[in-house]
Amino acid sequence: MDKLNIGGHSLDNRLLIGTGKYPNHRIMYDAIQKSGSKVITMALRRVDINSKEENILDFIPKQCIFLPNTSGARNAEEAVRIARLARASGCGNWIKIEVISDSKYLLPDNYETTKATEILAKEGFIVLPYMSPDLMAAKRMVEAGAAAVMPLGSPIGTNRGIRTKELVQIMIDEIKDVPIIVDAGIGKPSEAAEAMEMGAGAVLVNTAIATSSDPIQMAEAFSMAVKAGRMAYLSKFGPERHFASASSPLTGFLNEGAC
Amino acid sequence: MDKLNIGGHSLDNRLLIGTGKYPNHRIMYDAIQKSGSKVITMALRRVDINSKEENILDFIPKQCIFLPNTSGARNAEEAVRIARLARASGCGNWIKIEVISDSKYLLPDNYETTKATEILAKEGFIVLPYMSPDLMAAKRMVEAGAAAVMPLGSPIGTNRGIRTKELVQIMIDEIKDVPIIVDAGIGKPSEAAEAMEMGAGAVLVNTAIATSSDPIQMAEAFSMAVKAGRMAYLSKFGPERHFASASSPLTGFLNEGAC
Amino acid sequence: MDKLNIGGHSLDNRLLIGTGKYPNHRIMYDAIQKSGSKVITMALRRVDINSKEENILDFIPKQCIFLPNTSGARNAEEAVRIARLARASGCGNWIKIEVISDSKYLLPDNYETTKATEILAKEGFIVLPYMSPDLMAAKRMVEAGAAAVMPLGSPIGTNRGIRTKELVQIMIDEIKDVPIIVDAGIGKPSEAAEAMEMGAGAVLVNTAIATSSDPIQMAEAFSMAVKAGRMAYLSKFGPERHFASASSPLTGFLNEGAC
Amino acid sequence: MDKLNIGGHSLDNRLLIGTGKYPNHRIMYDAIQKSGSKVITMALRRVDINSKEENILDFIPKQCIFLPNTSGARNAEEAVRIARLARASGCGNWIKIEVISDSKYLLPDNYETTKATEILAKEGFIVLPYMSPDLMAAKRMVEAGAAAVMPLGSPIGTNRGIRTKELVQIMIDEIKDVPIIVDAGIGKPSEAAEAMEMGAGAVLVNTAIATSSDPIQMAEAFSMAVKAGRMAYLSKFGPERHFASASSPLTGFLNEGAC
Repeated sequence: MDKLNIGGHSLDNRLLIGTGKYPNHRIMYDAIQKSGSKVITMALRRVDINSKEENILDFIPKQCIFLPNTSGARNAEEAVRIARLARASGCGNWIKIEVISDSKYLLPDNYETTKATEILAKEGFIVLPYMSPDLMAAKRMVEAGAAAVMPLGSPIGTNRGIRTKELVQIMIDEIKDVPIIVDAGIGKPSEAAEAMEMGAGAVLVNTAIATSSDPIQMAEAFSMAVKAGRMAYLSKFGPERHFASASSPLTGFLNEGAC
Repeated sequence: MDKLNIGGHSLDNRLLIGTGKYPNHRIMYDAIQKSGSKVITMALRRVDINSKEENILDFIPKQCIFLPNTSGARNAEEAVRIARLARASGCGNWIKIEVISDSKYLLPDNYETTKATEILAKEGFIVLPYMSPDLMAAKRMVEAGAAAVMPLGSPIGTNRGIRTKELVQIMIDEIKDVPIIVDAGIGKPSEAAEAMEMGAGAVLVNTAIATSSDPIQMAEAFSMAVKAGRMAYLSKFGPERHFASASSPLTGFLNEGAC
Repeated sequence: MDKLNIGGHSLDNRLLIGTGKYPNHRIMYDAIQKSGSKVITMALRRVDINSKEENILDFIPKQCIFLPNTSGARNAEEAVRIARLARASGCGNWIKIEVISDSKYLLPDNYETTKATEILAKEGFIVLPYMSPDLMAAKRMVEAGAAAVMPLGSPIGTNRGIRTKELVQIMIDEIKDVPIIVDAGIGKPSEAAEAMEMGAGAVLVNTAIATSSDPIQMAEAFSMAVKAGRMAYLSKFGPERHFASASSPLTGFLNEGAC
Repeated sequence: MDKLNIGGHSLDNRLLIGTGKYPNHRIMYDAIQKSGSKVITMALRRVDINSKEENILDFIPKQCIFLPNTSGARNAEEAVRIARLARASGCGNWIKIEVISDSKYLLPDNYETTKATEILAKEGFIVLPYMSPDLMAAKRMVEAGAAAVMPLGSPIGTNRGIRTKELVQIMIDEIKDVPIIVDAGIGKPSEAAEAMEMGAGAVLVNTAIATSSDPIQMAEAFSMAVKAGRMAYLSKFGPERHFASASSPLTGFLNEGAC
């Protein structure tokens, strides 16, 4: 399958994984391994930077890029501080920006997010902003230096699927410089496949895997669905029709004396 | 993954494939191989029973069960005649019943289909009726001896997806003796995955694969999506929520002096 | 607005009303009056035929046609008996056939319903069969003498809307001899309007009105929505577009020196 | 019905009408009259301010508030200039802000729109910003002084309905200080009713009325649908159920010897 390019990195997997809500670190590790994911996100707050004991970072497979996120930030300034702290602590230069001041729907703040994107991109970060789907806001984030844009399908953790399809599809059709990564709300592998069939560059999944009764198997299911959706997108679809179109000849068989 | 049981046969693949509309026999053969499918359907009319030359049957992989269908039948009597002819011609004892008298939407006739099912099941056929989704009609077909029931997602060849979800889901929830196989209308791997996540036993796909620009790759995509959907169904889903549910701790990070 | 014709009767209102679940008879009466409905359905069982005291029939406005239904019948024979009893008891010759043997989804049995339709139509009843949406079954009911066919939008009392739209639309497009009346599942005025915009002849609503906090006002809302949907259908819609189409001239205003 | 309050004005109608695409001025006038609308929008550019001849403004009924819009503006500065010109020309102090730089989907620019809103609200305008649905952006517009916010249902002129329902519903639930007016994309009366049932304060419709085969009758249909939706919202809905709920007693009727 074709590679995904983010910030100059070429990735052979289009499923990004979040690390919240798993039953334990071991299951999280195994689920990530099974998913084949190469980019793993975690709130910086959850990283115990100074710990000498068991550390959640030890449960992120070595082949993965670590993508700390700024969860907890309520404005651009706070997001910038968290990003800098992450880099200073050895977490690398990838950063997922989350700026959220609404605690009920956890909706991102596109305006503050764009500001943080601009500052951090200039400082050399590979910036992936989580956003409310909006073509004009996404264009601003790309101009500000975002390496990808991450519109929500539905609010975080709701498992409601891609209910913003109308707006996300326009973003996919109009923004060609960076990948569109559908983040938040994807609750089923079919929905991940749907995002890929729409032309998304990747999807980020957390709750749907972590809260399944079998996170490891669910991780594999998502991994396959993402590949299936990407392959289908590349293979191109036949037209959708209003009336039926017979797969086989319809009538006259018996008339013609075949039997 | 768990096996699919149809008429006493245990199958390790839940994607059934139709044979219409492929660019040529060779591509059809390769697509079937790539899909891993074990059950292949074709209108009996298309089988040249007496041919000594190139025969489409030669392009069905040896490991597959051949499922002739009664396409062209307009009532039970015609369907029964086609089924008997198929068996007499060496096509085995599996039969997919299609009784269609409407040429615009190609909608099945549940009443005639039930009659044909009853006659053929008594004659020892493994009968798979194509039907309009309807719990009571499906129950009658099961009583009549159907080995599976095959409700349509949307009209044949339309690629419109599972638009009858409300009725198909009820069939899945209420009929436990035989598998529910979603047949017709599935246009994308995400839709095949969705059917499996709903609890369908299998899906049958033809037009979406055959009319893709790359049928072989599309066959592989469908195969993966079906597996992903089944695995997800077995792994069980977390709840769908109305409000957001944070994957990571939301607030207070910077307040607490972490930086 | 144009009239609705059922069994030779010309009606100036396209909203049929059911009588279950109202807080009391008085509110039911007022809701029916407010709705302007001309056809009111009730399970015959609820009619106390011999009562000399307060009788629910007294709460059906005089200008309405009474449409007893065969709720409680589990097969054609029982439905026929109830219909005959209704007529013998002075309830007139309209009958809504409900044959239901499933107590979880209350789904109709198209096969038994068709049988009952045929018997009762021959006996001079004006027969309105409640059915699972299915073009071929509907055609059989029309041939059997149905004065209208009544496909479900979703199961009775669920307020889930027209989830069988794919199948109901085909029935509307293909059956021109009798009206299609969407019955069951309609939970909101917008859904009643949608049915009418699709070309349905009428809708039947019960639960959504009766269980509202204000059944009388809700009845009026449904009445207006049904009229709005019918008027819109008659006025014809402009095309649905994929790309935007400006209502007003888009650019260049300020360039041209207007200010 | 309850009144709609915008910028201190109390309105007895919740349907706003646009003036583009009508066959001629006379039909537009009659459609507006039939709709009962009290707020009519038009691109300022279409207003011939100095004309002594037939003027489109003469075809806006006298009882209506004129709401000029800034169509053609590509940034806040241009929108502000158009608004000031409108007021200086005697068009009053209501202004609908449209800032659009994308010519394919005509999507609004929330950032520039917020800037224009702030400037114009301070100058005493009653500002109604057209926007991409986004809770945080809407909150900013309200803080900036917007008298209402107008999220799109789908792109202008597409008649695709409320495809942004997930985001618009959140705005309705969370913003209580000003009305949410669904603007753009509403193609059918059922969709207008749906917006009102969701709790929208009003809807703005143009293309769906103007491009109907009978704009005057379609205007009446929309007017009724908006009222129906608002009345239903005020009457409150019964619950949506997964399983059926009988309107009438289900079984046992014939068993009990009633006949």
